[in-house]
Amino acid sequence: MYFFYKKKLKNENMAKVNLNLLKLKKNYLFNDIEKKVEEKQKNQNLEILNLGIGDVTLPIADSVIEASKLSLDELKSPKTLKGYGPADGYQFLKKSIKENDYKDIDIDLGEIFVSIGSKYTLGNIGDLFSADNCVGLCDPTYPVYEDSNIMCGRKNKLFYIPLLEENNFKPRILKKHLDIVYLCSPNNPTGTALTKAELQQWVEYAQKTKSLIIFDAAYEAFISSDEVPHSIYEIPGADEVAIEMKSFSKTAGFTSLRCSYVVIPKKLKTKENISINELWQRYINTKIGGIPYPIQKAAEAIYSPKGQLEVKAIIDEYMKNTLILKEGLNQIGLTTYGGDNCPFIWCKTLKNLTSWEFFDLLLEKNIVTIPGSGFGKCGEGFVRFSGFAAKETIDKALTCIKKL
Amino acid sequence: MYFFYKKKLKNENMAKVNLNLLKLKKNYLFNDIEKKVEEKQKNQNLEILNLGIGDVTLPIADSVIEASKLSLDELKSPKTLKGYGPADGYQFLKKSIKENDYKDIDIDLGEIFVSIGSKYTLGNIGDLFSADNCVGLCDPTYPVYEDSNIMCGRKNKLFYIPLLEENNFKPRILKKHLDIVYLCSPNNPTGTALTKAELQQWVEYAQKTKSLIIFDAAYEAFISSDEVPHSIYEIPGADEVAIEMKSFSKTAGFTSLRCSYVVIPKKLKTKENISINELWQRYINTKIGGIPYPIQKAAEAIYSPKGQLEVKAIIDEYMKNTLILKEGLNQIGLTTYGGDNCPFIWCKTLKNLTSWEFFDLLLEKNIVTIPGSGFGKCGEGFVRFSGFAAKETIDKALTCIKKL
Repeated sequence: MYFFYKKKLKNENMAKVNLNLLKLKKNYLFNDIEKKVEEKQKNQNLEILNLGIGDVTLPIADSVIEASKLSLDELKSPKTLKGYGPADGYQFLKKSIKENDYKDIDIDLGEIFVSIGSKYTLGNIGDLFSADNCVGLCDPTYPVYEDSNIMCGRKNKLFYIPLLEENNFKPRILKKHLDIVYLCSPNNPTGTALTKAELQQWVEYAQKTKSLIIFDAAYEAFISSDEVPHSIYEIPGADEVAIEMKSFSKTAGFTSLRCSYVVIPKKLKTKENISINELWQRYINTKIGGIPYPIQKAAEAIYSPKGQLEVKAIIDEYMKNTLILKEGLNQIGLTTYGGDNCPFIWCKTLKNLTSWEFFDLLLEKNIVTIPGSGFGKCGEGFVRFSGFAAKETIDKALTCIKKL
Repeated sequence: MYFFYKKKLKNENMAKVNLNLLKLKKNYLFNDIEKKVEEKQKNQNLEILNLGIGDVTLPIADSVIEASKLSLDELKSPKTLKGYGPADGYQFLKKSIKENDYKDIDIDLGEIFVSIGSKYTLGNIGDLFSADNCVGLCDPTYPVYEDSNIMCGRKNKLFYIPLLEENNFKPRILKKHLDIVYLCSPNNPTGTALTKAELQQWVEYAQKTKSLIIFDAAYEAFISSDEVPHSIYEIPGADEVAIEMKSFSKTAGFTSLRCSYVVIPKKLKTKENISINELWQRYINTKIGGIPYPIQKAAEAIYSPKGQLEVKAIIDEYMKNTLILKEGLNQIGLTTYGGDNCPFIWCKTLKNLTSWEFFDLLLEKNIVTIPGSGFGKCGEGFVRFSGFAAKETIDKALTCIKKL
């Protein structure tokens, strides 16, 4: 069922729709879940134990809030007032990003674009390329990759790379050429992460077959294993084949503040030898403009010594809860993956239930998870648990699940 | 000359470019001006008198800043923390918009979408429609309308509606059908505004020929004439043919904060009878997500009694300066238009100079304006002056222009 039900064509002379939008599937996963939960709660005063949460739950670091407030005060005086900012972000923030996240990596400030959130960059980067490029997406996957590619006309140009239990949910290197491949590590939804050796194989694949990798590293801050790279550019040659996206949403609780960045190396060219970096700059100049100044100042504060300590404490707390949840699920006898370098746990359903059946079973106990099948066919038979939930919620939920 | 110079095609197997992007003209008007000004200033300590400014110069209202700071404090506690917000904006802001800007107009909250700036809505709304729709743009026009339509494949589907001196720069009603027409009133760059009677003719045109009007009312807050409507929906039936966009950028100095809104009535349907309102909701769900919470709280404060007084004082100050500038230019003998309901003045060049020649002549005196031809062919022979400049700057500039 598609999103836009095609009612009887009334042949008025009005503007014609972009037919690609009609190829979108009917529902947006998270809205479906919300509806089910709302229905469950209807007329009842239930305590819902949300273990599906893909949003942050801990307060934002003090240094971030204070920096943002100070920057607002600047706007009260004509001398320090800011107006339109650069579409690619202020230099002060790019400098902090470079000095911290790319200290030993050869990336310059002109290759960093600040953005209003990774959904924006992920949802729009595909517009730079021709509709007839073949695009590889992992299955299961974050729905925005798929939907945004359908929206720019690639419904029939999508190739799904299965993430299977037998491969530990790692995407296997392809034999076939793809023009663009989306990779996400640490992975949403499976919670697993690619090691340097594994990612290196993908970089080599892209070099050999001339593919472009769109590397989504939104959960990078949660990496604890030395084997997992924090940036694809740790791999030599990756700057010739990969765009990298990072988000402050999960790193520093910016889901309400909205800020992320994308790195587009100047070496990256289209088939026609056109700079992808220049294409993106031109795109955002026309299609969005700058990011709020107080938000960029908030993001800069993440990189202050105090901000770094505060953010680390928050991430440690989430990962501690993730570990408690994972161990609890394992003790109950559930099979889980991920959760080591990412706050998500990919959990096999009980008794071969489908994802939605298991979701419904858990919802009966007031527990919310995310059905794996909502992320793609290969997600069937799994649900996503999240360590963003509070410890108290996790404890209560584990007690309920034990009784299943 | 196009923006992306097509170098020798290196037939690598990399992703192919979106050819529509290559149809964009080489330079973005404001960047060109910036370069010229930078060159002028090079190695000199000149005082540049910027009368071209399209950005705000007065500090942001106290109540706006304080509301935003308070909302940041909410994010410090788990009880008041916000996470991902709705892609279409929080209800509290929509409610303020409805109660103030659409008090006596039949628009409901589901028809209001909060956005990250009018550039975003204007730059992306065209993506909802098929590339083969015919689109009418006024000439001169805000470049984003044209560029965004070229980017979605309508380079050869654009029809230019000339804004001519003989018509007082009002777009004349067309005989031909267009699928979509962009109208901007009060107008950037001409500074003129459509009266209710004039806008009514456009609504009737759209009703009769089944066109969609995209009505850009970014400068609505500057309207002083009773004859000029503050919303296209003051005209009966407009909700069947028009999308309306308003911005807080100029209304309340939000160019650094980034917030605007778009009204998409539920009655609006595409030729295939698909709700444009639903299409936009689906589009932003995938392509951008929510607007920063502290920015929406800042916008809400504009509508508080204190905020309204503060914002009015700021607008009055800009319009006072606009009047001084316009009268000064007229006294010197220059022919000017606009500036009554909009802080922009459309000024005929001296001695039949081209826009850029007049720009250069003024730049010799350290005065910056915006060459009218940068907004379209029919802008040739005009420059745009702006009342966003400070009174002191205006006085100095007028003294220099007198000596031309």
